[in-house]
Amino acid sequence: MAELATSHLSQQQCRGKLGAVSDALYVIGGKWKLRIVLALDQGHKRFNEIQRAVTGISARVLSHELKELEINGFVQRKICAERSVVIEYELTEYSSTLQEVLEALSRWGEMHQRKIRTEL
Amino acid sequence: MAELATSHLSQQQCRGKLGAVSDALYVIGGKWKLRIVLALDQGHKRFNEIQRAVTGISARVLSHELKELEINGFVQRKICAERSVVIEYELTEYSSTLQEVLEALSRWGEMHQRKIRTEL
Repeated sequence: MAELATSHLSQQQCRGKLGAVSDALYVIGGKWKLRIVLALDQGHKRFNEIQRAVTGISARVLSHELKELEINGFVQRKICAERSVVIEYELTEYSSTLQEVLEALSRWGEMHQRKIRTEL
Repeated sequence: MAELATSHLSQQQCRGKLGAVSDALYVIGGKWKLRIVLALDQGHKRFNEIQRAVTGISARVLSHELKELEINGFVQRKICAERSVVIEYELTEYSSTLQEVLEALSRWGEMHQRKIRTEL
């Protein structure tokens, strides 16, 4: 068997780790949340701009995901009223705690892309 | 706006990163896959043992997820024929490439648990 992070841990420590990963995936898992966070990382965006940046997401799902990201403190809605009322979304300070997870996912994704390419 | 991993990157570099994270989430995202990998990390398990370890997963979904993990090279089925035929699942060498992602998710999950606790 290959060794991952938990093989040196006691069963109790392992359960704690499993719980922490489950909790993390409960809040930021799924197909879209981290992609929306990344799309907002270059600056605040309007709803339609986010939808264009996150290829394949429907308006209904994006609206639902944005609400959940807002509840969990990663994204905030900003209402700009100059000529007309414009609603924009931007990242909160708390979203920067996701940096290490995103870097790890990005590195793994690049490695996996290279593996797939050499297998083709 | 808070700063994540991409704010110092050009638009092209940022798209590459977004692509890599999307690819990673496509393969290992979702509610169950990393939890199944973690459950197998302490050693090979039979189907029912995995289902008990991954609380809340149905047999139908577990079967589907195990097939996808097998196709993507993270898990292998092992047929042990001693007295009766027993099918077990175990991690492949390739699954150990997920270590950094799992460590990052686990650390973030622990930090998030502490934050939630102090807010209650």
